[in-house]
Amino acid sequence: MAFCTMAQTVSIPKGTRDFGRTEMAERNWIFDTIKSVFRTYGYQQIETPSMENLSTLLGKYGDEGDRLLFRILNSGDAFAGLDPAKYTTEDGLDGRALASAACEKGLRYDLTVPFARYVVMHRNEITFPFKRFQIQPVWRADRPQKGRYREFYQCDVDAIGSDSLLNELELVQIVDRVFTLLGIRVAVRINNRKVLTGLAEICGAPDMVTDITVAIDKLEKIGIEKVEEELLSKGISGQAVTVIETMLGLSGTVSEKISSVRTLMNGGSASGLVSETGLKGLDETEELFALISAAGIGQSVEADFSLARGLDYYTGAIFEVKALDYPIGSICGGGRYDNLTGIFGLADTSGVGISFGADRIYDVLKALGKFPSDLASSTCILFANMGKEELKYILPAVRALRDSGVACEIYPDPVKLRRQFEYAEKRGIRFLSINGSDEAERKTLNVKRLSDGMQRQFDYDDVDGMIDFLS
Amino acid sequence: MAFCTMAQTVSIPKGTRDFGRTEMAERNWIFDTIKSVFRTYGYQQIETPSMENLSTLLGKYGDEGDRLLFRILNSGDAFAGLDPAKYTTEDGLDGRALASAACEKGLRYDLTVPFARYVVMHRNEITFPFKRFQIQPVWRADRPQKGRYREFYQCDVDAIGSDSLLNELELVQIVDRVFTLLGIRVAVRINNRKVLTGLAEICGAPDMVTDITVAIDKLEKIGIEKVEEELLSKGISGQAVTVIETMLGLSGTVSEKISSVRTLMNGGSASGLVSETGLKGLDETEELFALISAAGIGQSVEADFSLARGLDYYTGAIFEVKALDYPIGSICGGGRYDNLTGIFGLADTSGVGISFGADRIYDVLKALGKFPSDLASSTCILFANMGKEELKYILPAVRALRDSGVACEIYPDPVKLRRQFEYAEKRGIRFLSINGSDEAERKTLNVKRLSDGMQRQFDYDDVDGMIDFLS
Repeated sequence: MAFCTMAQTVSIPKGTRDFGRTEMAERNWIFDTIKSVFRTYGYQQIETPSMENLSTLLGKYGDEGDRLLFRILNSGDAFAGLDPAKYTTEDGLDGRALASAACEKGLRYDLTVPFARYVVMHRNEITFPFKRFQIQPVWRADRPQKGRYREFYQCDVDAIGSDSLLNELELVQIVDRVFTLLGIRVAVRINNRKVLTGLAEICGAPDMVTDITVAIDKLEKIGIEKVEEELLSKGISGQAVTVIETMLGLSGTVSEKISSVRTLMNGGSASGLVSETGLKGLDETEELFALISAAGIGQSVEADFSLARGLDYYTGAIFEVKALDYPIGSICGGGRYDNLTGIFGLADTSGVGISFGADRIYDVLKALGKFPSDLASSTCILFANMGKEELKYILPAVRALRDSGVACEIYPDPVKLRRQFEYAEKRGIRFLSINGSDEAERKTLNVKRLSDGMQRQFDYDDVDGMIDFLS
Repeated sequence: MAFCTMAQTVSIPKGTRDFGRTEMAERNWIFDTIKSVFRTYGYQQIETPSMENLSTLLGKYGDEGDRLLFRILNSGDAFAGLDPAKYTTEDGLDGRALASAACEKGLRYDLTVPFARYVVMHRNEITFPFKRFQIQPVWRADRPQKGRYREFYQCDVDAIGSDSLLNELELVQIVDRVFTLLGIRVAVRINNRKVLTGLAEICGAPDMVTDITVAIDKLEKIGIEKVEEELLSKGISGQAVTVIETMLGLSGTVSEKISSVRTLMNGGSASGLVSETGLKGLDETEELFALISAAGIGQSVEADFSLARGLDYYTGAIFEVKALDYPIGSICGGGRYDNLTGIFGLADTSGVGISFGADRIYDVLKALGKFPSDLASSTCILFANMGKEELKYILPAVRALRDSGVACEIYPDPVKLRRQFEYAEKRGIRFLSINGSDEAERKTLNVKRLSDGMQRQFDYDDVDGMIDFLS
């Protein structure tokens, strides 16, 4: 192609990406793997609109979240009929008031709030327990930086309408299976929000769950001494800090850890206080690990009572998954929540869910070189174009291969073979078929495997024979 | 679940939709079918961001299109620093100027302009000829009405960087294969823009291609007499109208039609004028039909020299596909364009493409009852929950089935069997497995086919036997 040099400089918005054929094939492999596992566990896909009413979104993600929502200008003249005087302050235009008046819709910020809205809207059509998954892009007006995008996919799976710990087990099994199929070794860490509540209770500081967990969440980053300093600075007593220290220092098997924490929760800590909530959390954790052991899990799963994620949200089990062979933070996580739809005034929808971080999983697979090598080219065989008559000769054969599911291409123009061959190379196509008048006379097709140059002749109708050779 | 009645009234924006599990399964079946065919023809998927810079989108779809773009408010205070005086007119706020100042991005309006932008931006990485497909939502601030949405999926397939008519053939083959797999009988109509140009030329009105084609495009709706009236009112001579009438009255086989039009273009019409362009268009049409006949097409394909679609855009072949058994207008269409990237100042990117109308295809399949009956439930078998010990007994077996790709569910809670059974019914699950202490003692699993009540016992490890029975 003769491209002139007059092309305008074109670009895409900051923080967004194009996905070319190779990246798409790799991303599809991740999503297809995840979806296939979701389906074997009975989860079913739903989709919600990209836009939601701002009344649905605002106030659900905190002030920071409200600021990061992408707002969509109302269609038509969004500012028609607005009185300029009302939208002007001493400092100029009143941006906040104008945005409110001119925008009724915003782009989806996550999949959780739209899911809650979906459940409330469709509660009379849904069969509970409802096991749904959803894989769609979300948008956040975050400052773009390495690994952080303004448009990215979330991949959520939730079971709602059942308190059973079997749901928690199945999510752990899904994590196990997905990462095994993707070839990523992971560690799954499990905690229970009730144990964290219990910890605050036996510290004699039941109101300070958030402060305590925010502090211990930093353990890996800043070390035990700094955590202690932070706790003391928050006004937590020295005795309580000792209790927390004991929790953080736990080691041993899952049952040993559970047993140690049970002793603490049962009055055996420095404070001597008992937490019923904490004990309940331990019972749940114990039962979940009993189920895990009955089901059999391949990847590493451990109880970690210092794990704290999305604290304000979760009420039971908490999960976090990290790759063992590549340091990139959490690649999957979630937990149980007791009131998904409470934000829309509908009580009692307990559920449990996890979210896979597709972009980070992509980065891990890329860094570890774990993508299957034949993803890049979906085309298996290129038929050379030798001219009009030869083309007509091969058309029915190519059609038969395609109808059998083999991805074939015919080079569109009868150009020099060297150029057609280069195209096959660049595209990573593994077989080449060159057929001229000889083949047409003999009613055969010639197929060459490019990796080793092995060449075979097939009867024109021998589709099965060709498929054997191509696979 | 005990839902309280306090739920807020929640809603989604006008013209948008939620897709529940059944609709998603049906839509996925359409998209998966289309994608699988695209792949066997060597087309590869790309994705572009939902947002594009407004500079990329504006002016590409005409004034109407510009008005229908969804604009995204800049993040932060979009109105900060704007001088109120500059954005106020006598009539109030200057909506157009404010929207321009406060919005830099818009939502994708179609897949063609983003594709052109993609090709220009990535021209140095792309291997030409470039065969890409793209299936993503687009947004238009159209007035919502039955069958017209503000968010809907487009499904585009294009081959660029090659003039060969083989590309046109392959698109016809793709249409043939897709609708055959979907079970929809269609008629593919083919014309060539050059023949329409030729018609205007032999009418002695080369500047009036648009008027002529707009008029004849209405033939089906308003009949030949009204078309004639319209042509005359546009100032087209009576002699020219006779020429056009002859074209519209053509019947016979493809070669007979081509031969008749060739006579007209070659000086045989009432005007006696010759059109080289028209003759070129006929040559192309003839060659394309020769290829179609060599490849073998199952669905009906006809030459229709009155077909006019996207006239300003196409330069060669024009396609339109209609369902034969359900009247809903065009469900797929496209054509050859000579300058996709010209809008961005980059010349010489000839290509040909078609677009599948997913929403209309969905409506046709729904109306004709052509969706496979087993799409709605992706879950094959429900294992009843008989309590904690029985649950542990079945877990490894269920895991083995899932790892073999069978979609299984275990009812999460040990509630009454009748409720578990109702769940299976509502979800359309076809097999039920109830295992109590007897099965555990004998190390067997009990599986019942719900359609006919047939029941079988399997050895616990006989995964293959179960899979046979389940399929």
